[in-house]
Formats: sequence, structure tokens, C-alpha cells
Amino acid sequence: MTIDGRQRGLPTPPRLDVDLDEADRFFRQRATEDPSAPDPKVRHAAAAREFSERGVFTHTTAELEFGARVAWRNANRCIGRLYWRSLVIRDRRHVRRADSIAHECVEHLKLATNGGKIRPVITIFAADEPGRPAPRIRNEQLVRYAGRRQDGATVGDPRFEAFTRWVQSLGWSGKGSAFDVLPLVIDTASDGTAIFDIPEDAVLEVELSHPELPWFADLGLRWHAVPAISSMPLRIGGLTYPTAPFNGWYMGTEIGSRNLVDADRYDMLVRVGRQLGLNTDDERSLWKDRVLVEINRAVLWSFDRAGVKIADHHAESERFMAFVAKEHKAGRTPTAEWSWVVPPMSGASLPVYHQYYDESVHLPGFLPSVQWEPPSTDWGDDGPAHRTADDPGAGGCPYHHRGAA
Amino acid sequence: MTIDGRQRGLPTPPRLDVDLDEADRFFRQRATEDPSAPDPKVRHAAAAREFSERGVFTHTTAELEFGARVAWRNANRCIGRLYWRSLVIRDRRHVRRADSIAHECVEHLKLATNGGKIRPVITIFAADEPGRPAPRIRNEQLVRYAGRRQDGATVGDPRFEAFTRWVQSLGWSGKGSAFDVLPLVIDTASDGTAIFDIPEDAVLEVELSHPELPWFADLGLRWHAVPAISSMPLRIGGLTYPTAPFNGWYMGTEIGSRNLVDADRYDMLVRVGRQLGLNTDDERSLWKDRVLVEINRAVLWSFDRAGVKIADHHAESERFMAFVAKEHKAGRTPTAEWSWVVPPMSGASLPVYHQYYDESVHLPGFLPSVQWEPPSTDWGDDGPAHRTADDPGAGGCPYHHRGAA
Repeated sequence: MTIDGRQRGLPTPPRLDVDLDEADRFFRQRATEDPSAPDPKVRHAAAAREFSERGVFTHTTAELEFGARVAWRNANRCIGRLYWRSLVIRDRRHVRRADSIAHECVEHLKLATNGGKIRPVITIFAADEPGRPAPRIRNEQLVRYAGRRQDGATVGDPRFEAFTRWVQSLGWSGKGSAFDVLPLVIDTASDGTAIFDIPEDAVLEVELSHPELPWFADLGLRWHAVPAISSMPLRIGGLTYPTAPFNGWYMGTEIGSRNLVDADRYDMLVRVGRQLGLNTDDERSLWKDRVLVEINRAVLWSFDRAGVKIADHHAESERFMAFVAKEHKAGRTPTAEWSWVVPPMSGASLPVYHQYYDESVHLPGFLPSVQWEPPSTDWGDDGPAHRTADDPGAGGCPYHHRGAA
Repeated sequence: MTIDGRQRGLPTPPRLDVDLDEADRFFRQRATEDPSAPDPKVRHAAAAREFSERGVFTHTTAELEFGARVAWRNANRCIGRLYWRSLVIRDRRHVRRADSIAHECVEHLKLATNGGKIRPVITIFAADEPGRPAPRIRNEQLVRYAGRRQDGATVGDPRFEAFTRWVQSLGWSGKGSAFDVLPLVIDTASDGTAIFDIPEDAVLEVELSHPELPWFADLGLRWHAVPAISSMPLRIGGLTYPTAPFNGWYMGTEIGSRNLVDADRYDMLVRVGRQLGLNTDDERSLWKDRVLVEINRAVLWSFDRAGVKIADHHAESERFMAFVAKEHKAGRTPTAEWSWVVPPMSGASLPVYHQYYDESVHLPGFLPSVQWEPPSTDWGDDGPAHRTADDPGAGGCPYHHRGAA
């Protein structure tokens, strides 16, 4: 089950076709892994019958659960796959109204947050059917912070400036802080584009301070507890579920080495470096490397103190090695993209660095991110036009990804 | 000019065949880049004539120089390619005696060292010819430190324990320090295997101390100034030069994040961490990340103080981006392996991280490392049996490589 022609790092348009051959391979795969699965020939005959009547077929709940978990297992850019069997699946294929979808997303966040003991959860909405486009969530993740240009600088997350302008044009305003949670943007064929604020009690956030540097808290930094990706279609056994938000827990470096640090994100290196009294004009002093350590210490320490689950890159690398060993033991060849699985700092000090991986792409799987730009108003048979992200970073590991953590 | 079938990270046996078609492509490539090159058709006809008489043909010195520089330009694992045009080529194809080869290697080191102002240099010995095997250097680099097991621990570099045992069996003893420079091991068809000590005045070394931590000097760490790889055959226009040691200058992380730090090298993390007063039992405190910064600061500071050229990973990443831009401007597609070009620490803080690269492999080029194990005594027509390294890290970027810096 290989996605042909998917080049490393280059997003491909999401597949929307209903594919009975792929379904056949999926039924057979499930039968080899799950003793409770039906005879794949019988199952395929039933799917083919339904397809000949409706042009589509329907997964059972058990198939949906197996498919979603294996999609996580197959997520080559994700370091956090050891616990793929623990994924909680919420089958919401019957939910089609925009307000109901927003409600389910909020429930997803609450269930995943779990008072800080983050649980991996996926909520699966309807598959695309011929002539009946499924709903779409336009957000890249369920929780993201707005970015606004003010006086030549950005307040908030520069990555979401365009998205922020768009939701403003739809009537959203927000508080104007550097950490304004963006509203959900949901497209349905019946209601068009609608926006929904996420209630504050559904978004757990951690204020960042440092174990030894009292001034760190005064920077006013914070981050949300749950990374719930909502832009990657889920492909299971011949069907595409375009709206299937899912989350794991954070690895600290996603926040401390990327979101707060990347030059096109919160870009905090110089500010923290100056506070630390380092000479930020002298790259050769390795001040950037030093600052990265301190920001990452603050992230891990603050999440721990708040009782919010977060992985550090050392432990997560060890767990990934355990995943690789378990896959081999199960007779499968684990697949991974080295450049995404190796964390963004101290690479060579981690066991994941010293390995080569099979980079084959298998299904079931998460498809590359669909861009969270304003949708075209022109609705075809397949629903709102798909835009695959130009950013080669799109299509990242569903949980801990290199591009947009 | 693509090496077929060379999988990413998987070494292939070095090519020893004489290939007139490859020569033809090389002559044509040179003609497009070098106005002084002869008409490729005329040149190819001459090579073909020589081949029909001798079963081999001969590169001109100008071809050798162009080929070696382009081999560096094509070295996908090397971050230091901006200065590929500056490579100094020493044509030593006529040197065949083991002692003369050793002498030329020593001269190479002196020329490259240049009192600390390191110069990129390559010394090219004879190509393989049918029935006339070229000499081989068995060392991985011209300068490497011995490793000896003593009382359950390793004194020196564990990577070279087997090599050390081998040269001991050939009569070498060394001083027994942690930084004993290994002798050169040279195979020739006439003399078999011979070893040669490298004179002390040919090996510039830097003793490591730290700008702020006085106890760092007491660790007794040092490293050599010139990384001169001697295990990668050079393939130019249809001929293989199996013995062509070459060097650039070091990037600090090769020493500070790999050679002194890898668990199977000098493994200094815990020792330095304890000296820093860090709790080395608590990975989540990011003590390893902190120690990496301090060891790398010591390396850069010590080399600078000694007046020995060394790059830091921030500047070298910027220079690699300049190389990429220059290649595009010249109408060529730069190629690179992401996982080797991104330095082993603070990856995401460097511009090289945020790029995708064409990973095609082109010729002229350096072929994967040949293992520096004891040779077979059985000499075939092609000279000593070639062993391609089992270590997937072999075949690294000639200058700054991920596997063995």
C-alpha cells in the first residue's frame, strides 16, 4: 500500500477518489492483523455491492478504528508513534452541520486535554461522497494564535497573519493579545463558511517561566497544551476523510525550538539572548545554541509544573527506538523520514539520529496538509476546491512535525 | 551523470571499470564549463584510441583539476562547498612506491595545514589500470587517533580499536596516550602492506580549553587541525582514483558534537556535565544540550586562539546557502543530502534546515568510503580486495560528514 509519486517533502493533492482495489488491500491487511476482522473476500464483495449502488461504500466502526490507528503508525514524520494503539477514535461521520462540527471539535479538545493528562484523540467526520461534499475545517490546527501587523511588527504568530485577516473579514476580532486563540472556520455545502469561537475553558494553556531565571516569566510567553492538527486528510482503505482532527501531546522542542524561535514565528532568540546578557552580535559565541537550551528548559519546566503532559526530545527519541524495535518484532518494516523524526536541536546526541529509515509511504495514512487559505467560492462536485500547501513543510508528521509544530 | 542504484545512505562497492561513455559525458561537461577545454569529440576520439591500445586512457592535468573540483561541488553530504573552485590539486599519479606515497601524504598535510590557515588540498595518486592495481591507503583519514582497550575502558578513540590492533600486529606501538596519531598504512602490489609514522611536525593539533571554565583545560582534550579523508575513491570521467586524500577545514560541531561526544567515540558528555555541576541523571533538565554548547564553545575558542582555521555551524550554514544560490545562478541544480548537510546541533536555528534539496548523485564525485579494515591477502587483478564499509555512515561528505568527522 504505497502512495505512488509522493515525492519526499513535496505535497501532492489529496486523493478524493473512491478506490475499491485499495479497499481490498485494506480489508486483507486488517484480516492479517485483527483476528476479529471478517473474511476480506466477503467484506470486499459487500463493499463492491454498496459501491455499485451508491458510488461509494461505508467503513464499519471497527475498520475506521483500525485504519486511524494504522494511519498514525504509518506517519513517517512523527516521532511519537510508540503509542499508536492507544489512539481514541471518535466516529462523527453523521455530524454535518457547521455548528455541530464546531461543538465536536470543542468536545475533542476537552477529551484530549483531560486536565493535563493529554490523550491522543482523533475525531473523524464524513468521507467525501460523489455529489455530496464532506465538511471541511479550514484551520491548520484546532488551536492556533492570531497574528496581526501593527506598527511594522507582528503581534502574535506571523504564520497566521493571512488566516487572521481572513477571519477578521468574516467578522472576528479577538482581544488583540499576542496569544489570541483563532476561531474555528468550517465550510459546509449547506452553510458556506462559518466561524466559531472556541470557549476559553476548552483551551488549556501553560504560562512559561524558567527554573532559575525569574525574568523569564515577565516575557509573557505561553503555549497551548494540545497540538490538534486539522488540515491533514485521512485516507483509509479507498476513502478520504478530509476532516479528521487528531492530536498527540507536544514534544518540548516543537514549542521551544520552533514555534517560539523560528524567524517567521515568535522569533524570541535575540530577546532572550539579550536578557541572558549574551553578545547576540557574535554568532561564533554560540549564543543562539545557549538560548535554545534555556527556552526549552523553560517549556519543559513550566508544563511539568502545570501538570500538563509534554515529552522531552531525549525520552521521545528513546521511545521512537522502542517503536522501531516493536515494529520489527511484529514482522513489519517501520518507515520514517529522518529529517522529520530527528528533533530540531542536539540531533546527534539522540539515538534517532544514528539510524537510517525506510522512507516508503504506506496507507492507511494522513495525506499532506491542505492549505488553510481562504477557500474558493466556487464549489465543484467534490466540495470546496482543495489547495495543497505551497510550503514544502506542509504535510508534516501529524503529531510532532518539522514544519509547523 | 548519475550513479545509478546508489541508495541514500547505503554504500555501494566502488566502481573500478574504465568507462568511455562516462568519459564522453565528462569531456562534454567540461567543454560547457571551461572555455579552454578541447573539442569533446576530438578529445573522446583520442581517449578511445588510447583505450583500444592499453585498455585504459589518461586524463590531462587540466581534466584532473576540473574533475576533482567538480567532485567536491557534487559532494552531497558536504556543507562546505562554497569554495570548491579553490581546491588545490596535487597530481601524483606517477608516485607508486609505498614510502614515496607516505612522503607525499606528509607533504599534503604540511601544505594543507599552512601554519593554521588551512587550505583545501587533494593529492591524486594513480588510477586503477587493468592488470596494474593502484596503491591504496588503508587509513580512513590521514590523521586519526589510536584506541586501545585497557582495564575495561578505551584509551583514545574507540572507533579505531580494530585498526589499532591491526597496526600493532604490523609492529607499531605508539606512546599509549589518548591522542596517539596512527601510522599511515599503505598497500602496494610490489611491497604489500607497509606502515609509516607521520612526523610530529606534520600534524598540527589544538589543545582545548574554554573561555570561562578553567578546569576544561585539565581534561587534556585536543584535536588535529586537518580533516583529510583518505578512504573515498575519486571517480572522474570514466576512471577511478582509489587513493586521493583530500581535506577542507573543520566545522566545530564535527569535533564538539561528534568526535568528542558520540557514545562510540570519546564520549565526554557525562564527564563534562559533572564538572559543570549538572545533574546528569535527569535528561529532562537538558543537561546534555547544555554540555554540547560548552564543549563546542571550547572547540571554537581554542582553535581561534591557536590561529587554526575552523568554521562554526552558523556561518557554515550561511555559506552553504550562498553556494546553493551561486549554483542556481550558474544554471545548475545544487544537490545535497539534508541529513548530512544539517549540522548535528541546533538544526532548526540554521538556514540549511529550512530547505529541501535535490538528492541526485552526480559524477565526477567521491565514491563511498572503503573500509579501513585489515586487507585480504588475496590480490586479484584489481589490487587488494575492496571492502565497502558496513557502517551506513561511511561514504560521507568528504569534508564535514555526519558519520565520522
